[in-house]
Amino acid sequence: MNENPSRVEAFSDGVFAIAITLLILEIRVPHGAAGGGGGGGGLWPGLRALWPSYIAFLMSFVVILIEWVNHHELLRMVRGVNYPFMFANGLLLLTITFLPFPTAVLAANLATPDAGAAVTFYCMTFVLNALFWNVLFNTIVRGRLLRAEVSPDVVRNIRRTYYVSMAIYVLAAVLAFVQPALALLLNASLWIVFIRLGYRSESSVSSDRS
Amino acid sequence: MNENPSRVEAFSDGVFAIAITLLILEIRVPHGAAGGGGGGGGLWPGLRALWPSYIAFLMSFVVILIEWVNHHELLRMVRGVNYPFMFANGLLLLTITFLPFPTAVLAANLATPDAGAAVTFYCMTFVLNALFWNVLFNTIVRGRLLRAEVSPDVVRNIRRTYYVSMAIYVLAAVLAFVQPALALLLNASLWIVFIRLGYRSESSVSSDRS
Amino acid sequence: MNENPSRVEAFSDGVFAIAITLLILEIRVPHGAAGGGGGGGGLWPGLRALWPSYIAFLMSFVVILIEWVNHHELLRMVRGVNYPFMFANGLLLLTITFLPFPTAVLAANLATPDAGAAVTFYCMTFVLNALFWNVLFNTIVRGRLLRAEVSPDVVRNIRRTYYVSMAIYVLAAVLAFVQPALALLLNASLWIVFIRLGYRSESSVSSDRS
Amino acid sequence: MNENPSRVEAFSDGVFAIAITLLILEIRVPHGAAGGGGGGGGLWPGLRALWPSYIAFLMSFVVILIEWVNHHELLRMVRGVNYPFMFANGLLLLTITFLPFPTAVLAANLATPDAGAAVTFYCMTFVLNALFWNVLFNTIVRGRLLRAEVSPDVVRNIRRTYYVSMAIYVLAAVLAFVQPALALLLNASLWIVFIRLGYRSESSVSSDRS
Repeated sequence: MNENPSRVEAFSDGVFAIAITLLILEIRVPHGAAGGGGGGGGLWPGLRALWPSYIAFLMSFVVILIEWVNHHELLRMVRGVNYPFMFANGLLLLTITFLPFPTAVLAANLATPDAGAAVTFYCMTFVLNALFWNVLFNTIVRGRLLRAEVSPDVVRNIRRTYYVSMAIYVLAAVLAFVQPALALLLNASLWIVFIRLGYRSESSVSSDRS
Repeated sequence: MNENPSRVEAFSDGVFAIAITLLILEIRVPHGAAGGGGGGGGLWPGLRALWPSYIAFLMSFVVILIEWVNHHELLRMVRGVNYPFMFANGLLLLTITFLPFPTAVLAANLATPDAGAAVTFYCMTFVLNALFWNVLFNTIVRGRLLRAEVSPDVVRNIRRTYYVSMAIYVLAAVLAFVQPALALLLNASLWIVFIRLGYRSESSVSSDRS
Repeated sequence: MNENPSRVEAFSDGVFAIAITLLILEIRVPHGAAGGGGGGGGLWPGLRALWPSYIAFLMSFVVILIEWVNHHELLRMVRGVNYPFMFANGLLLLTITFLPFPTAVLAANLATPDAGAAVTFYCMTFVLNALFWNVLFNTIVRGRLLRAEVSPDVVRNIRRTYYVSMAIYVLAAVLAFVQPALALLLNASLWIVFIRLGYRSESSVSSDRS
Repeated sequence: MNENPSRVEAFSDGVFAIAITLLILEIRVPHGAAGGGGGGGGLWPGLRALWPSYIAFLMSFVVILIEWVNHHELLRMVRGVNYPFMFANGLLLLTITFLPFPTAVLAANLATPDAGAAVTFYCMTFVLNALFWNVLFNTIVRGRLLRAEVSPDVVRNIRRTYYVSMAIYVLAAVLAFVQPALALLLNASLWIVFIRLGYRSESSVSSDRS
């Protein structure tokens, strides 16, 4: 361990901020609308028909926001970073930068018979994402990068959450074949788990900085 | 309250900077122009026909710029941030990242019979935006995150401005059904209100840092 | 004057960095290429035909890079920023975020009879850009934001450069009607002027920090 | 040499972060999928057919990540930056911002008879990229910007790596005419060289900061 994490933070913040802002590019102005019909008012049906895009946008926005907050809390537990950390962090960022694509696939197919396949593909991205959170955390623990005040309890809790979430994402990916809407709900239910994880992580290191 | 707001600032700055820069992607090179006609000069009509895009670009650029400045001033009033702050701030950023879409809808429809619907949709985004400014400010006040030197007068003034602006955005959204151009003007008139708000906020905390 | 310029710097850096990176989105993969013809080798003519895009990309990249460096040097001359500075800086950033559009117009028309109009439009953007550099510098001088060690000579030199460059951009915009290629060269010749300006500005404040 | 590299770092980090995040925009939602066929399940073949896009995305993601890490390590060896450094760094960033285009060309042609040409074009971008790393490093050495503790051995090692990698990229560009897949593998084999270079560079300056 030989340097403080500030530049990795800055780079990661950049990637999170850009990925979350690029999501909107997947929502296209309704085609029929611009050409316009007779007496106006043709825009509203076009905007309403985009509901799958709004859902996909909102889901990915919330999850990137939560992951950014948790990334933030994770780096606060860390004394410094090493070379393996940089690449483990890079794998995590890979799934974040990839996310606008499954989001667009979800938006384009949610209202079609391919909804199931689209939700499965979307959830599979999160299986990878959860896996790389796990890899990053293991890299931190093995590299002895954790601050002394992070208790074994907190470490165990984080580990368990990563395993549980990976299992739930796999379940959601399979469930999507038969019940796409339910699978999306299951996916979203993990938000609560992650918010609680971040909140506990925060508490575990807050004392030394407040 | 347990940490200073610098990383939230960096993330928010990133989102504001990216959203303001992505706006230009909605202005497409005029189609007829590239193919070119006979003796040149066909480009100017194509560029002139894009006036709704220029107006939409300019309006959204100015409003994001002003909101960034005010976000900046708001965070200067704050002693630190907590977990709820992160998510309230996230909601505000949600409306900022969403903005390129209503901007594109406005650009595509301002010169069509759907102008009214497009302006209503555009103004509705700002109703949400004003609401989330309100939520963020309440989160700050309730979490006792405000610096001691911020007087109750300033707090009352900020609150009032948020309520007034939300009301005016609702009014503009309704007015747009009958008078789209006037509704856009009403929307833009709020810039003055926000600039004054930011200026006052700045004064209220400037003494301790100059 | 009541705060240090670090957050304005961060926001401006973000906008410069994003605008310079978005330029590439205007270069599209050659259409014929993907479909592919008979025995391969159809890609090279497609890539060669994009020469106007490469020129436009390169010109805008270099100018944004130079402007970023000069913005950097300008902010090093400044003791702090005030509210008017934020908005004058915003106007400058407006022309930077707008630049990908005239760049795309230039790329799409450089090899057509509309080349003259495209170059005029491109140069007109820089007339505005030079004007807003001027506005920003006047805001700094009037707000007494300059560091004490910046000599009147340096101030006079900067002012003169802005006026000269604005005049040359106007000249290039007019010249483009008859000689587009020459007008682009004239536009590019200003790079040398700006690099020299930045270099001198750097020297003028370097003593106090080295 | 007259200033510390922090703002150049911030700008470069921004460009690296944006370029790496923009890569995903090149992967488009499969067209046939949205229209949907009979009973669903038409999305998977569409997603599978995008394998050239995934390969191109992954290759460019990894290389930008590695280059960012190495840029990071390079700047840690530096005492400060000067004006020539800014522009040499700009040339390097030029090839980074350009990368999404050859990546898209690669993705669009990898499964066509034009694969060879696309891989050659892709590798040629890296010839330039390696050349500009060389220029940047020479600018640092000539400007006496290196920290005292960087040994001549490290300098020699870095130089040698840049020359070797440039030669290998040229070789890969030529090889691509006959064996595109092998050329891509050769290109990827340099990742190991760069990771080792970054790792050694890190070690060479770690003592003074740990």
